[in-house]
Order: sequence, then C-alpha cells, then structure tokens
Amino acid sequence: MAVSERIVLGIDPGLAHTGWGVLQQTGHRLGCIAYGCITTPASMALEQRLLKIRNQIHAVITKFNPCCVGIETVWFGQNITAAFATGQARGAALVACAEGGLEVGEFSPNEIKLAVVGEGLAEKEQVQYMVGQILGLPQPPHPDHAADALAAAICFTTHRSVLSPERLAL
Amino acid sequence: MAVSERIVLGIDPGLAHTGWGVLQQTGHRLGCIAYGCITTPASMALEQRLLKIRNQIHAVITKFNPCCVGIETVWFGQNITAAFATGQARGAALVACAEGGLEVGEFSPNEIKLAVVGEGLAEKEQVQYMVGQILGLPQPPHPDHAADALAAAICFTTHRSVLSPERLAL
Repeated sequence: MAVSERIVLGIDPGLAHTGWGVLQQTGHRLGCIAYGCITTPASMALEQRLLKIRNQIHAVITKFNPCCVGIETVWFGQNITAAFATGQARGAALVACAEGGLEVGEFSPNEIKLAVVGEGLAEKEQVQYMVGQILGLPQPPHPDHAADALAAAICFTTHRSVLSPERLAL
Repeated sequence: MAVSERIVLGIDPGLAHTGWGVLQQTGHRLGCIAYGCITTPASMALEQRLLKIRNQIHAVITKFNPCCVGIETVWFGQNITAAFATGQARGAALVACAEGGLEVGEFSPNEIKLAVVGEGLAEKEQVQYMVGQILGLPQPPHPDHAADALAAAICFTTHRSVLSPERLAL
C-alpha cells in the first residue's frame, strides 16, 4: 500500500493578525512546509483589511495546494466586540478556503491544545514549544498566531484520517 | 450644473439571511432599483454559506454597478454566538464590496433608524413602512432583511454627499 500524503493548512484568524501554517503529512509523519502571519493595520479601511486576509490566504492556498484546513472555533472568553471583529476576519479567510475547495475542520481551543500538548488548558508558550517539537523545528515558531495556526493544522491531522471515509469503507 | 446621480447598495448581513437593496439617487430623489435576500440553510457547510454570501453580493455588484454601500455596524444587543456568526457573514459580504472597489459606510442601527423613521428606537415594521414610503414602493419591502438593507442604503445617502469631498472643496 502506498504511503498516504496530504498537505494540511491551519489558520488562526484575527482582524489584526491572522496566523497561517502549512504541514505535509506522510503517513504518521508531520513536516512543516511554511508558516506566517498576515498583519493588517487598524488605520486601513475594514473592507480592505478583510480583502487582504482573503487574498493572502488565497495566495497561500494557490502556492502550497492544501486539501484541507484546520481552524479554531469561537473563543467564548472574548468580549463581543472582539468576537465580531474575529468573526469578520474568519469569514474572509473561510471564503478563500471555500473558493479553493478545501475540506474545513473546526476545532475548539481545547481540542487544539489537547492535540499538541495533551492538556486542554495549556499556556501559549507550551503550545509554541510543542508545535516546534512535533514538527522538528530548530526553535518554536513565532509569532504565536503562526504557532496557533500550525497547532490547528496538527489538530486536523489527529481528528481526520488521511484516508477519506469512502476509501476507509473499501 | 449637471444633476448628480449614483447607485447605492445597502447590506443587512446575517449568516442565515443577508438582505440587500439597490437604490438610484438623482439629486435628492431616491428610487428603488432592486432588493432581495440571500438565504443559506444551516445544513450547508459554514464555508459554503459564506462563499454563497460573497458570490451573491458579488453578482449584485456586477449587475447594478453601485459606487458605494451602506452596512450596519455590530448590534451589541446580540449574544456573542450571534455576533460571531453575523461577523463571519459580514466579513464575506465586505470582501465582495472591497473586490468591487465600493466606498463603504458603516452605520449604527440607531443612525439607520433615524435616517428613515426620524426615531432611533423605531420598530421593525415602522422601518419597513417608511422605506416603502421614501422609495415610493406600492407596499413595504419584504422580507425585513431586505427592508433593513434598503434602510442602510438610504442612511448612506443622508450621511455621505453625492459629491466627493474633493469635488466639494472646489
């Protein structure tokens, strides 16, 4: 049987900072292909900030051709203004994912932390450290938004089999 | 002096129902060109719902070629889950507006109600009735999401002069 491979995207959406990360999964092995952070200044018009997020996620998808994406669900600890701003950024990012035909997996912050640290209440630094360990990086990924995006991608690989349900049923 | 004309879009964003409306402004006269409501079922994947909103707002912009759009700001009376869902829908709609190069005007629910009813605490039915009166429609526009979108477009015309600041400064 051939080793199953796939490219997995992770996104940590935010209006000011949207982290992204791209993994390659080969069987049970994970490798980091690229990661980064899309920053939009508060001085920019809202719709231009959202378009920048859509366009840059679109560019990442075009460059690395992932089949699927892991993304964090709402964090209820935020206030309503922050939730609304993050929601808008997430909407712009998900438009790019839908345009690219990616399978979307939504995970809670706890699910993501569990997947990388084995502990749902882990601190940000622990997540950064463990993402670096799991992916064999020389140092923890920075900024934390990129590390959180890679963590969402790792979480996707642990929750969704590399084989599709149709293929598993054969 | 030539009479100033412009086409103005209004959007009332929501994940399940996004209202839209298109006005023509000729001097101080307003006329309704078209309105409608984009509906996405809860059974549809989130990213596909958001892409449908982006695509249909894009189609409205392509068809009617508005230069600008009025859109409601966050309604703080909503709970955080609703704010997050509405935020995502608003993000998808604003991506389409930015792609079309529209000038975006954001208005609070109170500003919009004041513009159409002269009363910031007006009921939904009053808004629908007055939108119909202002635009000379044979009956109030339905559904209320479409009426709210037309109200946002009317609010834009009262807050932003048909002449750009550069032209006014001449």
